[in-house]
Amino acid sequence: MFFHRQELQFSSTPDKPDAVFARKLQEVLGGQYGEITVAMQYGFQSWNAHIPGKYRDLLFGIGAEEFGHVEMLATMIAQLLEDAPLGVTGDAVQDDPAVAAIVGGTDVQHAIVAGAGARPVDSNGNPWSAAYVTASGNLLADFHANANAEMQGRVQVARLYHMTEDKGVRDMLGFLLARDTMHQNQWLRAIEQLKEDGLEQLPVPSNFPQKKEHTDVSYQYLNFSDGAAAADGPWAQGPTPDGNGTFSYHDGPTTSAPMPEPTRPDARLFGTTDAPNPVEKGAARVQDVLHKE
Amino acid sequence: MFFHRQELQFSSTPDKPDAVFARKLQEVLGGQYGEITVAMQYGFQSWNAHIPGKYRDLLFGIGAEEFGHVEMLATMIAQLLEDAPLGVTGDAVQDDPAVAAIVGGTDVQHAIVAGAGARPVDSNGNPWSAAYVTASGNLLADFHANANAEMQGRVQVARLYHMTEDKGVRDMLGFLLARDTMHQNQWLRAIEQLKEDGLEQLPVPSNFPQKKEHTDVSYQYLNFSDGAAAADGPWAQGPTPDGNGTFSYHDGPTTSAPMPEPTRPDARLFGTTDAPNPVEKGAARVQDVLHKE
Amino acid sequence: MFFHRQELQFSSTPDKPDAVFARKLQEVLGGQYGEITVAMQYGFQSWNAHIPGKYRDLLFGIGAEEFGHVEMLATMIAQLLEDAPLGVTGDAVQDDPAVAAIVGGTDVQHAIVAGAGARPVDSNGNPWSAAYVTASGNLLADFHANANAEMQGRVQVARLYHMTEDKGVRDMLGFLLARDTMHQNQWLRAIEQLKEDGLEQLPVPSNFPQKKEHTDVSYQYLNFSDGAAAADGPWAQGPTPDGNGTFSYHDGPTTSAPMPEPTRPDARLFGTTDAPNPVEKGAARVQDVLHKE
Amino acid sequence: MFFHRQELQFSSTPDKPDAVFARKLQEVLGGQYGEITVAMQYGFQSWNAHIPGKYRDLLFGIGAEEFGHVEMLATMIAQLLEDAPLGVTGDAVQDDPAVAAIVGGTDVQHAIVAGAGARPVDSNGNPWSAAYVTASGNLLADFHANANAEMQGRVQVARLYHMTEDKGVRDMLGFLLARDTMHQNQWLRAIEQLKEDGLEQLPVPSNFPQKKEHTDVSYQYLNFSDGAAAADGPWAQGPTPDGNGTFSYHDGPTTSAPMPEPTRPDARLFGTTDAPNPVEKGAARVQDVLHKE
Amino acid sequence: MFFHRQELQFSSTPDKPDAVFARKLQEVLGGQYGEITVAMQYGFQSWNAHIPGKYRDLLFGIGAEEFGHVEMLATMIAQLLEDAPLGVTGDAVQDDPAVAAIVGGTDVQHAIVAGAGARPVDSNGNPWSAAYVTASGNLLADFHANANAEMQGRVQVARLYHMTEDKGVRDMLGFLLARDTMHQNQWLRAIEQLKEDGLEQLPVPSNFPQKKEHTDVSYQYLNFSDGAAAADGPWAQGPTPDGNGTFSYHDGPTTSAPMPEPTRPDARLFGTTDAPNPVEKGAARVQDVLHKE
Amino acid sequence: MFFHRQELQFSSTPDKPDAVFARKLQEVLGGQYGEITVAMQYGFQSWNAHIPGKYRDLLFGIGAEEFGHVEMLATMIAQLLEDAPLGVTGDAVQDDPAVAAIVGGTDVQHAIVAGAGARPVDSNGNPWSAAYVTASGNLLADFHANANAEMQGRVQVARLYHMTEDKGVRDMLGFLLARDTMHQNQWLRAIEQLKEDGLEQLPVPSNFPQKKEHTDVSYQYLNFSDGAAAADGPWAQGPTPDGNGTFSYHDGPTTSAPMPEPTRPDARLFGTTDAPNPVEKGAARVQDVLHKE
Repeated sequence: MFFHRQELQFSSTPDKPDAVFARKLQEVLGGQYGEITVAMQYGFQSWNAHIPGKYRDLLFGIGAEEFGHVEMLATMIAQLLEDAPLGVTGDAVQDDPAVAAIVGGTDVQHAIVAGAGARPVDSNGNPWSAAYVTASGNLLADFHANANAEMQGRVQVARLYHMTEDKGVRDMLGFLLARDTMHQNQWLRAIEQLKEDGLEQLPVPSNFPQKKEHTDVSYQYLNFSDGAAAADGPWAQGPTPDGNGTFSYHDGPTTSAPMPEPTRPDARLFGTTDAPNPVEKGAARVQDVLHKE
Repeated sequence: MFFHRQELQFSSTPDKPDAVFARKLQEVLGGQYGEITVAMQYGFQSWNAHIPGKYRDLLFGIGAEEFGHVEMLATMIAQLLEDAPLGVTGDAVQDDPAVAAIVGGTDVQHAIVAGAGARPVDSNGNPWSAAYVTASGNLLADFHANANAEMQGRVQVARLYHMTEDKGVRDMLGFLLARDTMHQNQWLRAIEQLKEDGLEQLPVPSNFPQKKEHTDVSYQYLNFSDGAAAADGPWAQGPTPDGNGTFSYHDGPTTSAPMPEPTRPDARLFGTTDAPNPVEKGAARVQDVLHKE
Repeated sequence: MFFHRQELQFSSTPDKPDAVFARKLQEVLGGQYGEITVAMQYGFQSWNAHIPGKYRDLLFGIGAEEFGHVEMLATMIAQLLEDAPLGVTGDAVQDDPAVAAIVGGTDVQHAIVAGAGARPVDSNGNPWSAAYVTASGNLLADFHANANAEMQGRVQVARLYHMTEDKGVRDMLGFLLARDTMHQNQWLRAIEQLKEDGLEQLPVPSNFPQKKEHTDVSYQYLNFSDGAAAADGPWAQGPTPDGNGTFSYHDGPTTSAPMPEPTRPDARLFGTTDAPNPVEKGAARVQDVLHKE
Repeated sequence: MFFHRQELQFSSTPDKPDAVFARKLQEVLGGQYGEITVAMQYGFQSWNAHIPGKYRDLLFGIGAEEFGHVEMLATMIAQLLEDAPLGVTGDAVQDDPAVAAIVGGTDVQHAIVAGAGARPVDSNGNPWSAAYVTASGNLLADFHANANAEMQGRVQVARLYHMTEDKGVRDMLGFLLARDTMHQNQWLRAIEQLKEDGLEQLPVPSNFPQKKEHTDVSYQYLNFSDGAAAADGPWAQGPTPDGNGTFSYHDGPTTSAPMPEPTRPDARLFGTTDAPNPVEKGAARVQDVLHKE
Repeated sequence: MFFHRQELQFSSTPDKPDAVFARKLQEVLGGQYGEITVAMQYGFQSWNAHIPGKYRDLLFGIGAEEFGHVEMLATMIAQLLEDAPLGVTGDAVQDDPAVAAIVGGTDVQHAIVAGAGARPVDSNGNPWSAAYVTASGNLLADFHANANAEMQGRVQVARLYHMTEDKGVRDMLGFLLARDTMHQNQWLRAIEQLKEDGLEQLPVPSNFPQKKEHTDVSYQYLNFSDGAAAADGPWAQGPTPDGNGTFSYHDGPTTSAPMPEPTRPDARLFGTTDAPNPVEKGAARVQDVLHKE
Repeated sequence: MFFHRQELQFSSTPDKPDAVFARKLQEVLGGQYGEITVAMQYGFQSWNAHIPGKYRDLLFGIGAEEFGHVEMLATMIAQLLEDAPLGVTGDAVQDDPAVAAIVGGTDVQHAIVAGAGARPVDSNGNPWSAAYVTASGNLLADFHANANAEMQGRVQVARLYHMTEDKGVRDMLGFLLARDTMHQNQWLRAIEQLKEDGLEQLPVPSNFPQKKEHTDVSYQYLNFSDGAAAADGPWAQGPTPDGNGTFSYHDGPTTSAPMPEPTRPDARLFGTTDAPNPVEKGAARVQDVLHKE
């Protein structure tokens, strides 16, 4: 269950309206790596968790915080939009070029659809999609997804920080940056702990018996491009991070198989084929079905 | 530039048709973590790279391999579908319950739309979307995205491995599992190398001056749920992975701000407000605009 | 801010696994009118609200409950999937036709992607989309959206109730039905209260001066089909609900305008036109641009 | 069957080109609550109707009108675009700031994709999606959806009215506003008529036996937020609109259940668990399957 | 304007219910090449047309027919669903394997969301998307899109024809096949007429001065694969269809350019670079912005 | 298998940065008819091909070239963005109106998400979707789809050519225009060859026995609009392109069927009906199920 308190985790008030920045801020609210994504992602990971205790509690604990960040950003965006101009008039643009920038740079749905309110979309107006969410039930994989999400999120907030000079906005962004710092560290630490606790190892999933894979190509760097520096990295030589092998380097593939013959499915699917009778394998039946019935 | 050779990297021929499994295999071709995703992701990361040399070459080198995996899976799926039944007839189902399973479990667009061919969709028929792709220009963040993608991919292939008994299919899945093992290891090693080369550190992005963030909350675990085990993890105490701080544990938020007043935007946006005159701040103008013009 | 408690609002445990019903239950979790929709919808309406007090508090109060319903359904789905079979084998289907139904009727991503966990999708596997959310800032409009959402939701839960005989599942659905009953009533009562409080009237938005619309057609039923019963309803005669007019009935339109001439845009957009010179209006310029430069 | 007449229901010609406003107008053509949505929504409701007569005729009659509104808006948009500039040149912007506004504020696909034509998208370029359509077969629910759609639509048109000073455009918007007024009134009147005819009552669906729901919570306002004004509304006390109960007010939930244990699905789904042997319930089988085969 | 008549263009009544086929039929109603697509496509092409007369009239004339086909299919689907079973019970499946097929093969949203009604989706439940529509303003290009749409549509209907034995359904499909035959022929004839009328020629768009393109590669077949038969086709030798050139054959590219250096954008975008100072080009500014402010 | 070479097919370097044009160029990279579409479309057509030899080789051969065009455009876009400004400041706009245009006209995700890199989206920021791809297995249909794609693509590139004055950009566009010329010609020639080889004829699919369709309406132009010029075209008289018939002209439909009765599905789907007892056909059962259980 979730309970709501009519407070914010941090002050979220801009110095002055800025409809253009409001649009940009939508990215970290409703974009691929916005707050809705991490809130829903940690939620589904906790509901799909297969172990009680500290890992599930961690997911519950951070997930609820992220829903609060959604609210913080929505509140900020509504304030940035509070005095947004309605639209363009020739005179206004002639008088003040800044109006032209505003006209062009805003999310017009902020005004037309939401009446100067935040929307669950990214900075280009794409609706947030649950296709952004990762929750596989394998915690080592999912915690890497989480670490990545917090990194992408912090990169985006850092970029936004330099796209505004509003002290109120920067103050809030500084808070979000700190929380992203924390959450990056948390997921990276949790990754190590999973391995220390013996719950998962590399390669993920570690309880799939590796002998069933084609181990001859498990540690080969197969370079399908022609870059000269390709062989210089530690991914082309030396021990592998999973501790099970040694990297080797190869120009292109080490295995190959002939391209299979094209398929010739049932003639009643009306694909194009070069056989005199279009369905070699079932000629009798096809004649019957197509031409006699 | 890309060049195509009419061979496959590994044999991709099933023992016998299986339209139900063909549908499932679509997940690792056209799903969120399917081969199209990694091929396009490594492609965009290479084209957006800001440094020449081993990292960009690595992206080019693996990216091209993944396009070949797309082809391998598409070829396999077409073969699994080659003799798929067209549809249901009462008699056939009465005679053989397995037909009922096939009727229900296939992707009907395989027949209706593709004529027994592979499609660029996932196992539920959702078209592949470029919203799955991550390419931020920050390599430390992106390589975590890549490691996650290879982990999710290997988890899914491992699950599929146990959903079929077809030796030809399992053989190919065993090959893909091995390549996922390799790529997991590669990205994890590349993550370490980025740090060793001094190109990026934690927290990402490391060249954003951390003093600008609210460092008081940078290492606090704020538990917004009520789990008893929440404080037990190493993410609630001890040194942080970025080496810059020490974790501390707190029940709930350590900061708070009052919820801002609701916004009262321009009356011509026709939102609902409780003010006697709907636009306190611009009353004169609203009267003029709305009632006199 | 949101706080999470590791309890559910109502018992959510099935009597036995049922992967087919788990798929169906996804509709009211992640569908157009599922719990994610109402949770997010009430959230954005509260964050975009323009008046403090009882209406905004109502939105905050119900919104947080709905996030708990998301969790309740996700938890139930994970339990229904706990012992789902991995897939099909010829023998199993031959032995038990029910296996065939399960094979065909499940969401295969439940197994392949989520490892027997709930997903933020509808019963056909479409990812939840924020395009389902309505939050316009006009409360009379939005509360109608909310009443509709609760009605559609209760209709769907009532349908699902009759698609299972599992007592544990029906118990939970009976709880959700009751909450939908409450929320339907609440939004309908709030609609009346908005009018009683004088905040909004019909037609929405009521503070747009109606004299600016073409009032001659404001209360005409223009029947563009040929149904004989079309004129019988109270929407074709008698007073209108907004109290401002009287319905009248007309076969087809009462106004008409000639279709405008086709447009002939700039020739450099390379559309097809029948003019001897493709851009009559700017011939000189086009010649210059296209053929001389 | 539909028949087309080469006339418009109302004059749809702008005074002068305005590519920026053309983009905004896309919202009420191809947005969530644009004319395509209501045309298709009323269409599918009529085709799915379960009773002949006045209600189905009403749906047919208004639906066909809305397809004409799609055409009216598309025609207007093409005219607004007819003389749109192709793009930016440094000099033009230096000479006239209004050019800068136009450059930034247009839908660039209007030029690149449609060659100065209308598109089936919203004002941010999102393609219209059938996920916007509601047609449940329950008319009381669906008519609330329709009333809401006409309200949201009228709010948006009213907003657009104030974003242009073009008399031709405003004239057409004034016509659409009037039709929205009519359609709001019609659906609201039809809602009452359904109840008067005894076809549906509250709560929807009324023929689901209410005794099967958990009636103890059917009329409780459970406030999951901490707003002081929450209890003041008529939704927290007094009779309910469905006539079946009395509202009561409660801080938070009145029922509670412990969070179920995490699930532990088949080990071959490779989720993470803390059991010494990863699949407690089926250990023998897992050993066999995973390590011996 | 569109007018509706409560008749169908052709009888649309199945012999008996078939919920599994109802799902399949959704493809030609709401799929990529379903009737909604062609109805909307011809509509937008007519509204965006730049010439009055026979071509625009043709678009208007066929477009309205296609809206009637949408209705025909929706009506048929509702009838196929009229007696669809609600769901699975163990006993029913044990008694009759056909029930299992039905359980697995239906669109569950037909029941849960639409209450046994048609939906604006394809056979996998993907909502129809306006991204399927093509309307460029260039009629020669668009008529090729139309011819293709009618071909894809006829292929799909022909496939569906063999997936049912219901005479009523086959009768209606036979009608749609005939109309697809007509429309294929119409668009192909209209393509020739456009060229005969001198409105457009190949290559499209023909009024772009071909001398501006790199004519040295305008007629070269550059084979980027290694197929032996690649050079055998008439696309590798002989005159070109546009009459302006002669095909020639080449293994791989005939032109090449070095890969440009990676870009090094503003350091405040926090991408990864190998320069000692991350922004070589703007070092002073970056120092100022990042470290001194 | 695909192999990558670190060269481009053609020089792809702009004279100077232009973030506004970079956004526009996204259309032909990641739009409906961008290079990703044709690369993937030719790929899936080759993998689904049912005949070996020249046609499949043609698909392989062009498909690989198109992946190289994706790279060429992505590289160009990254360079156009290299020195894009971070955002707006009041002063900058006041000083230079061109800054306002840039602020408004860029894709803000280029900066926030990609850090000045290309993205797999169109010019409005819609992620590329595999729903754009056509691959039916019927080559005559698919080659029409391909010809259309190359025509739409060339139209768009021609439009973009006139939206920039940058010589480097125009040079690359001139190259792409030439390749589009070639590919249009190739697919059109291949269409003729398919017919010459006797593999497919009109109407597509030609091996569906035409006698099964309702041949009485196979060549009738049924005009559902009221355009005077409708009958003038060669599509209303004379021989048909498939050689099997003669066009005839008719005002409106030549066949008609009464609208079927509305359906009355199972009462447990809770649709609205006017029957005294809501389920006429199954009254006893409904009473039992709904009111007695």
